[in-house]
Amino acid sequence: MKIKVINPNTTLEMTESIKHAAEHMARKDTEIIAVSPKMGPISIESYYDEYLSIPGVLEEIKAGEEEGVDAFVIACWGDPGLHAARELTDKPVVGIAEASLYLASMLGARFSVVTVLPRIKTMLEELVDSYGMSKKVVNIRTTPLCVIDFENDPVRGMEMLRAETKRAIEEDDAEAILLGCAGMAEFADSLEEEFGVPVIDGVVAAVKFAESIVDLGKKTSKLKTYKYPERKEYTGLLTEFAHK
Amino acid sequence: MKIKVINPNTTLEMTESIKHAAEHMARKDTEIIAVSPKMGPISIESYYDEYLSIPGVLEEIKAGEEEGVDAFVIACWGDPGLHAARELTDKPVVGIAEASLYLASMLGARFSVVTVLPRIKTMLEELVDSYGMSKKVVNIRTTPLCVIDFENDPVRGMEMLRAETKRAIEEDDAEAILLGCAGMAEFADSLEEEFGVPVIDGVVAAVKFAESIVDLGKKTSKLKTYKYPERKEYTGLLTEFAHK
Amino acid sequence: MKIKVINPNTTLEMTESIKHAAEHMARKDTEIIAVSPKMGPISIESYYDEYLSIPGVLEEIKAGEEEGVDAFVIACWGDPGLHAARELTDKPVVGIAEASLYLASMLGARFSVVTVLPRIKTMLEELVDSYGMSKKVVNIRTTPLCVIDFENDPVRGMEMLRAETKRAIEEDDAEAILLGCAGMAEFADSLEEEFGVPVIDGVVAAVKFAESIVDLGKKTSKLKTYKYPERKEYTGLLTEFAHK
Amino acid sequence: MKIKVINPNTTLEMTESIKHAAEHMARKDTEIIAVSPKMGPISIESYYDEYLSIPGVLEEIKAGEEEGVDAFVIACWGDPGLHAARELTDKPVVGIAEASLYLASMLGARFSVVTVLPRIKTMLEELVDSYGMSKKVVNIRTTPLCVIDFENDPVRGMEMLRAETKRAIEEDDAEAILLGCAGMAEFADSLEEEFGVPVIDGVVAAVKFAESIVDLGKKTSKLKTYKYPERKEYTGLLTEFAHK
Amino acid sequence: MKIKVINPNTTLEMTESIKHAAEHMARKDTEIIAVSPKMGPISIESYYDEYLSIPGVLEEIKAGEEEGVDAFVIACWGDPGLHAARELTDKPVVGIAEASLYLASMLGARFSVVTVLPRIKTMLEELVDSYGMSKKVVNIRTTPLCVIDFENDPVRGMEMLRAETKRAIEEDDAEAILLGCAGMAEFADSLEEEFGVPVIDGVVAAVKFAESIVDLGKKTSKLKTYKYPERKEYTGLLTEFAHK
Amino acid sequence: MKIKVINPNTTLEMTESIKHAAEHMARKDTEIIAVSPKMGPISIESYYDEYLSIPGVLEEIKAGEEEGVDAFVIACWGDPGLHAARELTDKPVVGIAEASLYLASMLGARFSVVTVLPRIKTMLEELVDSYGMSKKVVNIRTTPLCVIDFENDPVRGMEMLRAETKRAIEEDDAEAILLGCAGMAEFADSLEEEFGVPVIDGVVAAVKFAESIVDLGKKTSKLKTYKYPERKEYTGLLTEFAHK
Repeated sequence: MKIKVINPNTTLEMTESIKHAAEHMARKDTEIIAVSPKMGPISIESYYDEYLSIPGVLEEIKAGEEEGVDAFVIACWGDPGLHAARELTDKPVVGIAEASLYLASMLGARFSVVTVLPRIKTMLEELVDSYGMSKKVVNIRTTPLCVIDFENDPVRGMEMLRAETKRAIEEDDAEAILLGCAGMAEFADSLEEEFGVPVIDGVVAAVKFAESIVDLGKKTSKLKTYKYPERKEYTGLLTEFAHK
Repeated sequence: MKIKVINPNTTLEMTESIKHAAEHMARKDTEIIAVSPKMGPISIESYYDEYLSIPGVLEEIKAGEEEGVDAFVIACWGDPGLHAARELTDKPVVGIAEASLYLASMLGARFSVVTVLPRIKTMLEELVDSYGMSKKVVNIRTTPLCVIDFENDPVRGMEMLRAETKRAIEEDDAEAILLGCAGMAEFADSLEEEFGVPVIDGVVAAVKFAESIVDLGKKTSKLKTYKYPERKEYTGLLTEFAHK
Repeated sequence: MKIKVINPNTTLEMTESIKHAAEHMARKDTEIIAVSPKMGPISIESYYDEYLSIPGVLEEIKAGEEEGVDAFVIACWGDPGLHAARELTDKPVVGIAEASLYLASMLGARFSVVTVLPRIKTMLEELVDSYGMSKKVVNIRTTPLCVIDFENDPVRGMEMLRAETKRAIEEDDAEAILLGCAGMAEFADSLEEEFGVPVIDGVVAAVKFAESIVDLGKKTSKLKTYKYPERKEYTGLLTEFAHK
Repeated sequence: MKIKVINPNTTLEMTESIKHAAEHMARKDTEIIAVSPKMGPISIESYYDEYLSIPGVLEEIKAGEEEGVDAFVIACWGDPGLHAARELTDKPVVGIAEASLYLASMLGARFSVVTVLPRIKTMLEELVDSYGMSKKVVNIRTTPLCVIDFENDPVRGMEMLRAETKRAIEEDDAEAILLGCAGMAEFADSLEEEFGVPVIDGVVAAVKFAESIVDLGKKTSKLKTYKYPERKEYTGLLTEFAHK
Repeated sequence: MKIKVINPNTTLEMTESIKHAAEHMARKDTEIIAVSPKMGPISIESYYDEYLSIPGVLEEIKAGEEEGVDAFVIACWGDPGLHAARELTDKPVVGIAEASLYLASMLGARFSVVTVLPRIKTMLEELVDSYGMSKKVVNIRTTPLCVIDFENDPVRGMEMLRAETKRAIEEDDAEAILLGCAGMAEFADSLEEEFGVPVIDGVVAAVKFAESIVDLGKKTSKLKTYKYPERKEYTGLLTEFAHK
Repeated sequence: MKIKVINPNTTLEMTESIKHAAEHMARKDTEIIAVSPKMGPISIESYYDEYLSIPGVLEEIKAGEEEGVDAFVIACWGDPGLHAARELTDKPVVGIAEASLYLASMLGARFSVVTVLPRIKTMLEELVDSYGMSKKVVNIRTTPLCVIDFENDPVRGMEMLRAETKRAIEEDDAEAILLGCAGMAEFADSLEEEFGVPVIDGVVAAVKFAESIVDLGKKTSKLKTYKYPERKEYTGLLTEFAHK
């Protein structure tokens, strides 16, 4: 099967490492297509970035429909555009935040998220709440690092993640750690080994869930909320986004 | 003071009627600037439309910063892009859904929303929940009409709104009605007169709240969640959206 | 328009300073009538005081009906008697706690209340919860000072407010501060200037919202919960409270 | 032991029937003192009535302290003044709504309240929520009858209660019925017999819980929320309420 | 009346001390039958122990039906098998956790639980939540001690309880303490005396509530959730558990 | 890999059909071991049955540890014993209710459960709530049929499921259907085809999630809640359950 993993930001190095992680975990008969959108921010660290990453994500969903893709993964821990993506296709679309949360809740009773800049804490709290996971997520821990810092200075990134993982276990009573950024995949194994608790990279979790849903032959419900978008005109820079 | 009212869709007739409603209720010394974005959907009736209306909304917020605007109103009952708009400016930004909900909760104990197509019900439930109003909103009632139908066939629109208002009062125990679409402003007064309960058009509610916040000299908190977006590069069609 | 601001306690110095704050922020064409009830506690710092402030508040609402008042503000951060006040009149009645909470939620993502004695913490938690704001209010911080202390020793009052505001920002991740007592209006501006976050005095927030609701021509819903009280006899000391 | 049952309204016939019910269920060595306040409404059917019943209730609590009472019951299904009563004494104070809810939750999984006029539905929803019982209470069913109607025309009262009990069982999936007014005690047994589910009169439930708490030697916590009211002056009609 | 108190673990010394506490508080005309099941764990400190204590508990409920018991108490702070016990009999069945929570909420506004090993914290959080008490329980404090440690080394047990009670009052703002294990009854009085707040042993609370419910003549609702178990075959080791 | 699917009831025909469904959907390299416990009820339709199915389930988990099993599925829509199972092994254990809920929430916005007898409705509501899914599950619909009826009279079973599925879609606004019993697997495909919405059998969902978790190399967190049970003696019929 073909799973299209969309990194909503336009930093291709990150798309490469996401691809690498996904391929490493995917089944042999699963083809991973990893892309960045053709437009949008080089990283996502605010509502502004998040919303502006969505047009590019949706364009890739539409393209995927024509590429014969079987399922989609949105590989940013804010699940940007997830609901709209589900409107555009009847193929399963899995966000890495939701996949992480569901996986974690099958492995531990309470868990913490460790992520980038403090400013996104509220955004993630609301996301977690929308998935019904507020009681299970005991804390969302931020670091002073931005997304790209983890790419550029992985040593410092690892150090920060270690510090917050330690605090999550000692102060939050967390029994599993969720890495709250698609660019943190590479750190999961070492952290898991060091701390002896499940450390979850959402990308691989979402890829495996996507494989499962395809195997099960399940499609997105087109009954009401996720019906195809209403047909209508779009204007200006976004004219091409008209749904016909 | 200058209040910029942004109709997130690109249907100018609707922007005109929003402007008309806003000016009718604004104070004499308030200048209403009503605009539609330069890009995006002609109406908003899905997550897809909503997300794709946001780039245009944000462009208008940025422009407003240079136009010396004192406050912004986002005039669609999904409050599209509200959180990102608050990142872009320290001027108050008020969404018409939130303004409707807060106003209603000062006028009645329980209330229902009456809106367009059934598909947006979940979207609005989640919005209402994010404002903490799930217990006060007893129902979200939809009609088979889309946004433009209310513009094109106001007689039928009124008929539908009357039917759902009646049901909301009789079946939901609603004590006030919130019109869940910026294009329904014109129907509020007749419904209020007929049914004898507050019928709330969010556009005028948001304009009055915006005036109040400007009078109070209050600005959006720039401490954490609503800091200015991180500076970074944007690519492709959205290059101009880079925040510098 | 005429807005009657009722300070539910009987300390006239406090009523004066509330009047001062209200007039400073009200529009030129708004007449502020600030009163204390003719009966009741000199300050409100317990459920006992709160409940016993209500008869006096309700008497002032009734009087206001005859004085041609357009809207009412209840100026104590427990919103004492608010629901009963809404039964007595169809003019808008705004509590300063609810006004503070709605205003704050349009300016910041998360906020803390700073208030008087520790004993009222639970009371305020329940109040905040009744307005649906439990997730947005991250903490209710108390001081060892009672209401009158802030009048009598404003230097010490300011010191305490500064200390708790600092902690709210650093420890609670609060992005705005709500002053949880009508007698704290005078401290709002200095705190806002010093800490660079919105610091909200509920009195002026409520006055501006009341002006807005009057402008909008909205009245309290008389459909069910806020119908006029049932007509009936009252006995003893409260005979005059019979609703006829 | 002595239990003082305070009927918060001033209708003595109702106080008599409450006394009768309480004595019927109390232990032989329990003395029931049933009183109405010396002031206030003849029945409670609005927030207005409820708040104005509280001064009289609190006066009776204070008097009870001097009468050597061991525990108090507040016998109105809105638990008026309960929290303030707990401030005034360290003797246990039990409300009939809370007692009904806790008793019911030990007898059935889900239950409905059947009560008087529709206007009090929201008031009771908020009360139920404050006790954490929102999920267990599946409905609050009202009748077109006011409190006194049940005294004056018990045949019609019974008919209405039967109709709503039937609907609660068939439509709400209720497994127990809570009679939402202290004046409905006399109907409990017949309803229970007819419908074969627990039908709970709060007065007797509260009396038995009060007996239990006295037996256990437990007192109200005076640590924080329920400390004795702060000492202070009161003015006007309420001068005598000053707490010294 | 006869109340059967079932200690779900098989440590008879603990059953004895439970019996002692129950008899001390029961009315003279109440006969306390205290038993341990004939099978199961010697203490309950995990989900595993809890589930495996239930068959023995249920066997004792069935036996109680034939012994002419009037009510049952399940004396372990996880309320193991409570819902199934209610299916097996129409006599009231009271769990000590639920009894503690309802009693505490009539004595204080906020409270903490102090209990055994850290591993049961989540289990108790979910239990508290199922009773609707999440907002009132501010913390669940654990100790490094297991159930039997409190029997074997009461001095160390007391020391630990004192330390956590102190923290609960100072750090959690708890106004009452719930002892989260049936084996802690003996410590309640000294703790209450030392700290001056209600310290609640669930066993005596449950016994008194059971007496009350019997006095009231109330039985478990057999309408739906707590109907007698469906008749059916059981196999293997559990053949005797078939319900006929 | 080896996945052990435990049907918690002792009806072997049902275990066979569960095995059939699981094998049909499992990967070729997955070996499905489907078993019924050696003890317990022939079907689960009450709390009583559920608790008494757990010893047998746990015995199979322990056995699985020695059989070199890679993951476990508990195949009853009450997830009986799930938390204890996770204590007994570090291999992933997946319940079919939780798997159904997580899968459904990736396919539709709102969904209903359709299940057996009315008496289990509350039990399932609490289960759904414990997974954080209360807002997404709009209804739990029961039928007058018991578990075995679906085996014995599949034609009538199908008819009932069709009727409730229709109502779920029309009255609940459900966008997906969850079959709330492991014995309903065979009906999923026809229902899905007829109604055009996802119809989810939990058995296959859980098997696929188990495969995914094994592929990911994830194990249950042994940090706190799911530590191995404390070592201790067990007595009577359950002596063999002692954990050593």
